[in-house]
Amino acid sequence: MRLPEAWIISVGNELLNGRIVNTNLSWLARKLTIDGYLVRAALTVRDYCADIVWAFRTALDKGASLILSTGGLGPTFDDKTSECLSEALGRRHVMNDEALKMVEEKYRERNMPLTEHRMKMAMMPEGAKPVPNNEGTAPGILVEEGESLILVMPGVPREMKDIFERIEPLLRERAPPLHYVSKDLLVKGVPESAAAPLIERVMKEFPVYIKSHPSGHEIRKPILRINVIASSPNREEAEKYSKGALNMLRDLLMKQGGVIEGVEDAG
Amino acid sequence: MRLPEAWIISVGNELLNGRIVNTNLSWLARKLTIDGYLVRAALTVRDYCADIVWAFRTALDKGASLILSTGGLGPTFDDKTSECLSEALGRRHVMNDEALKMVEEKYRERNMPLTEHRMKMAMMPEGAKPVPNNEGTAPGILVEEGESLILVMPGVPREMKDIFERIEPLLRERAPPLHYVSKDLLVKGVPESAAAPLIERVMKEFPVYIKSHPSGHEIRKPILRINVIASSPNREEAEKYSKGALNMLRDLLMKQGGVIEGVEDAG
Repeated sequence: MRLPEAWIISVGNELLNGRIVNTNLSWLARKLTIDGYLVRAALTVRDYCADIVWAFRTALDKGASLILSTGGLGPTFDDKTSECLSEALGRRHVMNDEALKMVEEKYRERNMPLTEHRMKMAMMPEGAKPVPNNEGTAPGILVEEGESLILVMPGVPREMKDIFERIEPLLRERAPPLHYVSKDLLVKGVPESAAAPLIERVMKEFPVYIKSHPSGHEIRKPILRINVIASSPNREEAEKYSKGALNMLRDLLMKQGGVIEGVEDAG
Repeated sequence: MRLPEAWIISVGNELLNGRIVNTNLSWLARKLTIDGYLVRAALTVRDYCADIVWAFRTALDKGASLILSTGGLGPTFDDKTSECLSEALGRRHVMNDEALKMVEEKYRERNMPLTEHRMKMAMMPEGAKPVPNNEGTAPGILVEEGESLILVMPGVPREMKDIFERIEPLLRERAPPLHYVSKDLLVKGVPESAAAPLIERVMKEFPVYIKSHPSGHEIRKPILRINVIASSPNREEAEKYSKGALNMLRDLLMKQGGVIEGVEDAG
């Protein structure tokens, strides 16, 4: 089966002078893989408009079904992704009323005025849709160009994840139908910080997405709900990945003194 | 001052399905920045020959002074970087005698025969120079094409670093003259594992390269020699970065119970 191809663009000088390790890229690449995309290539560019234009043009010209970008969305002078995307698309860069309302509300909540720099975050390519950002102020930008869907997100990981997960159902709809197996493993007695390296090991071994949700108290009485998602065009394969990952995770957690409370179907 | 521009190419499916975070990229980007290069862009591609060829051709066509690549050097069928680089350069892919000697020696030391798969690691573009790899078996590949210097390295971080540092003096020679300030901070009582996050914090704050060299015993009697390198076209600026980083590092280490034994000039 031919999967739709995705390109990921990362914008920011800090990625090219070594100050930051690009964990957004690996997070998005895994999500897209689970969602039924082949991530074909990733481009990392500096905060130069010509380079940002080049990156979007390259992904479009290569026929990417999906283009995700992170970084360069915000109020400062070096946040140029939106403007340069407009240039890449040959569209006008305009004030988006829906985006302006989102930005306005954010600042009104904190009794802060809507300055020119803040309004800049509501400027988008003509025809784009803003995506709410619950973790920050700059809305994401969703825009269709020919057969390509483009989603522009901030570089701050929690904002990027918030926006991505809001659009993820749409991305799954646009991918070929996959079988998903989503299970929650419940474990007592292992703090989330101790589970983190175990989860990383399982994710290296199996093509699954794993996210832990702590409840209880991290040190005194840790309870974790660990969601494991596997997917495949083939139901048996998805089941196999899910089982393999859950078994490995269970064994690792028990070695750390964890008590497994059960495995539940998850949404 | 105009800095020579570098492009970094990362090859490997594991970088585009989210199994691996690309720490090679940030390590190389910081090294090159300290060595006097502007890292202009980074391309991450899968183990597809057409994509690897595209990545090298793109960097060459964009006039990169330096192109570094990691990944896809090795004995298995999906290690294609060398062959695809030959294709990108329009050169014959040939057995390099010097490389063959390096590979042969590695296996002879362990009494292992030189199979076809192993000999593959000595195949290079015509006119390339092999670079010894002290940490693994596949030699690096150094090749000039017009005004561009290309260095191809394995993806295993310790092999990549070994090869890069062997070529680093040459890279510094090809960059404009910079002032370097290299100092060793000696500290007792902080294990390397506890110093690591402190070093990361300092590297986020200052444009310096920091590497810790443990001696003594990690837990019972830790002694660290921490090398801090700053560079700039301007001597005063290099001194300023060096001092700022050393002061911050000293304060952080002392808060962890470290005893500073002194600061020495380093090579």
